[in-house]
Amino acid sequence: MKVLILLASTLFVTVAVARQQVGTSPWGPRDEIGSLNMMTDASRAAILSRVDGRRAYDLSVEYYNGMPSWSALGDPTFQMWLTHTPRGTGVDDPMKVGTQQNKLVSYTGDAISMYTHTGTHIDTLNHFGLHGEIYNGFDADEHLGDQGWHKGGAEKFPPIISRGVLIDVAGAKGVRVLPPSYQITPADLQAALKRQGTKLQRGDTVMIRTGKMTVFHDAAAYLASPPGLSLAGAKWLVETHGAMVIGGDNLSLEGFPVVEKDNWIPVHSYLLAEKGVPIMEVVNLEEIARDRVYEFAFVGAALKLRGASGSPMRPLAFPVR
Amino acid sequence: MKVLILLASTLFVTVAVARQQVGTSPWGPRDEIGSLNMMTDASRAAILSRVDGRRAYDLSVEYYNGMPSWSALGDPTFQMWLTHTPRGTGVDDPMKVGTQQNKLVSYTGDAISMYTHTGTHIDTLNHFGLHGEIYNGFDADEHLGDQGWHKGGAEKFPPIISRGVLIDVAGAKGVRVLPPSYQITPADLQAALKRQGTKLQRGDTVMIRTGKMTVFHDAAAYLASPPGLSLAGAKWLVETHGAMVIGGDNLSLEGFPVVEKDNWIPVHSYLLAEKGVPIMEVVNLEEIARDRVYEFAFVGAALKLRGASGSPMRPLAFPVR
Amino acid sequence: MKVLILLASTLFVTVAVARQQVGTSPWGPRDEIGSLNMMTDASRAAILSRVDGRRAYDLSVEYYNGMPSWSALGDPTFQMWLTHTPRGTGVDDPMKVGTQQNKLVSYTGDAISMYTHTGTHIDTLNHFGLHGEIYNGFDADEHLGDQGWHKGGAEKFPPIISRGVLIDVAGAKGVRVLPPSYQITPADLQAALKRQGTKLQRGDTVMIRTGKMTVFHDAAAYLASPPGLSLAGAKWLVETHGAMVIGGDNLSLEGFPVVEKDNWIPVHSYLLAEKGVPIMEVVNLEEIARDRVYEFAFVGAALKLRGASGSPMRPLAFPVR
Amino acid sequence: MKVLILLASTLFVTVAVARQQVGTSPWGPRDEIGSLNMMTDASRAAILSRVDGRRAYDLSVEYYNGMPSWSALGDPTFQMWLTHTPRGTGVDDPMKVGTQQNKLVSYTGDAISMYTHTGTHIDTLNHFGLHGEIYNGFDADEHLGDQGWHKGGAEKFPPIISRGVLIDVAGAKGVRVLPPSYQITPADLQAALKRQGTKLQRGDTVMIRTGKMTVFHDAAAYLASPPGLSLAGAKWLVETHGAMVIGGDNLSLEGFPVVEKDNWIPVHSYLLAEKGVPIMEVVNLEEIARDRVYEFAFVGAALKLRGASGSPMRPLAFPVR
Repeated sequence: MKVLILLASTLFVTVAVARQQVGTSPWGPRDEIGSLNMMTDASRAAILSRVDGRRAYDLSVEYYNGMPSWSALGDPTFQMWLTHTPRGTGVDDPMKVGTQQNKLVSYTGDAISMYTHTGTHIDTLNHFGLHGEIYNGFDADEHLGDQGWHKGGAEKFPPIISRGVLIDVAGAKGVRVLPPSYQITPADLQAALKRQGTKLQRGDTVMIRTGKMTVFHDAAAYLASPPGLSLAGAKWLVETHGAMVIGGDNLSLEGFPVVEKDNWIPVHSYLLAEKGVPIMEVVNLEEIARDRVYEFAFVGAALKLRGASGSPMRPLAFPVR
Repeated sequence: MKVLILLASTLFVTVAVARQQVGTSPWGPRDEIGSLNMMTDASRAAILSRVDGRRAYDLSVEYYNGMPSWSALGDPTFQMWLTHTPRGTGVDDPMKVGTQQNKLVSYTGDAISMYTHTGTHIDTLNHFGLHGEIYNGFDADEHLGDQGWHKGGAEKFPPIISRGVLIDVAGAKGVRVLPPSYQITPADLQAALKRQGTKLQRGDTVMIRTGKMTVFHDAAAYLASPPGLSLAGAKWLVETHGAMVIGGDNLSLEGFPVVEKDNWIPVHSYLLAEKGVPIMEVVNLEEIARDRVYEFAFVGAALKLRGASGSPMRPLAFPVR
Repeated sequence: MKVLILLASTLFVTVAVARQQVGTSPWGPRDEIGSLNMMTDASRAAILSRVDGRRAYDLSVEYYNGMPSWSALGDPTFQMWLTHTPRGTGVDDPMKVGTQQNKLVSYTGDAISMYTHTGTHIDTLNHFGLHGEIYNGFDADEHLGDQGWHKGGAEKFPPIISRGVLIDVAGAKGVRVLPPSYQITPADLQAALKRQGTKLQRGDTVMIRTGKMTVFHDAAAYLASPPGLSLAGAKWLVETHGAMVIGGDNLSLEGFPVVEKDNWIPVHSYLLAEKGVPIMEVVNLEEIARDRVYEFAFVGAALKLRGASGSPMRPLAFPVR
Repeated sequence: MKVLILLASTLFVTVAVARQQVGTSPWGPRDEIGSLNMMTDASRAAILSRVDGRRAYDLSVEYYNGMPSWSALGDPTFQMWLTHTPRGTGVDDPMKVGTQQNKLVSYTGDAISMYTHTGTHIDTLNHFGLHGEIYNGFDADEHLGDQGWHKGGAEKFPPIISRGVLIDVAGAKGVRVLPPSYQITPADLQAALKRQGTKLQRGDTVMIRTGKMTVFHDAAAYLASPPGLSLAGAKWLVETHGAMVIGGDNLSLEGFPVVEKDNWIPVHSYLLAEKGVPIMEVVNLEEIARDRVYEFAFVGAALKLRGASGSPMRPLAFPVR
């Protein structure tokens, strides 16, 4: 019996590994942006023509020293520091303009440092690959330089302008935050959409609310045991509904720890590497959830960080008619 | 005769210094965003209702190691570095998942560091003040903490959604780049607007093209002797035309060196400290100039860097009907 | 009764505050190094003439991502990252030397970032002051620029070459680590010295062992509730015995939380600001404790970080005859 | 004729490439410190027994924003910034101790960031390898993690305590600075040693003075066209005289541009990768040259930066009897 189970387990792992390969882009061998190719002049025009321009919901969190960020593997925390201050300029006189001008002109400058996956951000297609390659077969040994990838970086991402849909899973379940490490299933997504009366369309930017954002200002609580999207949920969104971008209000989109045994981050590798679908994380969905803005025009653009695996972003949601 | 000139000069300086005081906001003593208060539901709806949504022009430059940035006073250059790579993960096994998963899952992560006034960016109202205060009278001694200002930071700036106007001064003068240190006058602005057939409106985001962006990839050339807006030009835009935001394609908006003797950065202190008008710099205006998109819907949002004197931004220009 | 206690408490606080003033250096109004002036050609020659040069004990810890560092107030953690790697150089060809040379020459470069009080380090006299001044009356408004102090920085510290003494308090008490937050008293120091048979001399670099270094590799444990030197203990070392430098194997030299009510870090402000005595922290005393090297020649030199309040250091202890 | 020269050139290159292989350590397959194994209890005792301890020459430069550093390939410049200031602490109250304590206690903290090869520093054996391996055959694919090498890092370097010898080449030639890009030959070294009356011994730390340090405070001048050690000079020091460490007062030890056609940095790859001899750079030799301290006890210790290819260091030179 034990032997049979081991055998089954071995077979399962073998099969699972065999399935996981980077996707080949239907948009050609030079493609680096995957599903973002779904955007067309017509798709942009269609959603923007419906915009009710009076209100723009801000989907971003603030950046500040001490904010939640994933540093368990040694990545840098968010840092902002001052490089020029009114009094310091008076002491240093760096412009060599003398006391009178330094008393008149009060200069403040600052600098920042951060892991590119800090705060509200997007993951590019080179963030997670499989077998040393990223989506569309670009190999690290050939394309990964010392200051980032030559392929699939944030500078390649066009502005994202699409229909946006909020799926308020926490709201549908009537909880403030989903339980720790809860894995959101396709049925959960369906139930939430039905409650909202929202239908998904091909090319949507889909935002999934777990409720974790309600504890954002308690960094330890925000980072701990995130509930999130299951692999089955991700597949349902992409393969059944043609989602273009998938985001969430938690740190990692997917729930952790994962249930898969052969891949420690299966939703990321599925979306980014197999399907070429960008991920967004730490998206602030509280206001649109409160106001029941389930359908909207999503407008957001990554900073064009050359080669980067991610970029901070401050996306907007415009209600639509 | 010499005495008279000296006397006149002294008087002038005295007068000039006396004039330079931080402005008091007409939007009340708690206001931290100045002219951005011009935006209303109606103003946003008006410009967005005219959008031709098929095309979104990207007004941002790329960020990369070695890019032009102002480090003459010791500020950090733009840095991006890798924190996780597919091969490094295999060597380190930071997740403690073992060889098989590290061969399967190819993780790339990166981090960035920069002066907040690097690449396409916006200056907030605390970037330059006068006599130790910023716009609306907030005093550094009371409001400047060790990780940035408690007042007037980038996190306070709402998304900027307004009519945008390009003033292509280099184009009007028929040159690739304006001459080194050239000071753009009100007459230059008027001539360029007349040539374009564009009229300014109160609340506009005004973008001034010097042509410097054509040499952006040569960092030394881009940084050297920038032509830019004169103080008279800035006053004409604000006081005669009610500009809400003023930006340029050069490093510093204003031309350097300046002609004023009592203030080393007079356009900045005038706009930010006296008038509460945000400044944008290093804005890529090449495509909209080429396509003669002189009027557009401007959509851009600063990263909400708490307390920051500036923030990178990737703004968009939508052609309007 | 309650009133009396309150009254007494108020009086005490008043008195305490009144006592706390920055010291005036006996070495003159321009002095920035305080007690380090105790070092003379004769003092250096005296201790070095006794050196048994066969063995140099290394008193420093390693620096690595994830190492213990104090970031509770938002300071950066230690970061090291790669800027050049053999494979990345092959992909980027930054030197423009071509494939053959990139395959031949394997270049590795790295960069670091840290709070200056990370790992084994020394505090300079500008790290803590009183009433806006540092030791010897240098005022922050006059001498604190935007890239550090113009007075009292690490670049002013001469190499420290002196008699060194280990006081193994944990060893004397027969414990692995002193109890959490334990405040080491003068009696504790006396008892440990007596057990060791060591006598203090004027001008010594005194190292106090709490045993905390035994848990250094568990960052949370190392940082938590440090036992350390009490204010009374610090005074006894300085005023009774003329200590020149005082260091410890814990994060903070002094024990936290402190018992004083009017000053959250009294040993630091006493030693640095009142007495001009540099502090060392995170000093690895395990090997010299194990080998009972209670007296030694201490040789260490801060990096000359201009203006800095602290500097990493790798000090050595040479046994003496 | 042309054909013959081409042929000869091709042959030369082929031979040269064939010669360049990482060295195998005579100290065994696990060795990561190469020539530093020359140090023994006896060698340390021998040199320290001769120390005249009255004077310690400081061989280090200061670190400051704007200091010379090699950033041509995008590496970070030296940065120091303030994280805590007396006034900022009063505004922020980060310790939550209230106004009275913030007025009493004046806290200053700062942080630094730098390429590890900035200022006076040592190169470890993983800084340059050949064919993807470092000295003693450690392969990057097996031993290079995302936060540095697992082999050959700065934390492995013991304190360097040895006989030190200054070779004042600029002095011997009677010039302030050697000509731009001058390649120092074995004959130059011999002539300088003869003039000084100094003899090399096996195990020495050898310091070569080009005079470049005289222009250190002019960063552009210091970095430009460094004169330095030729490959022949390096071989003479190692193979004829058994040098343990070789350092210089310039940025790069070797002169640039190099004359070799097949290797852009031949002295580094020869010393580090072939011979396992650490390199020191930006060493301040002005004082010992002025005082003609040609022989000394060298005492210096790298910061134990785990895995690092280099480390800042503040070495000392003690005159000997």
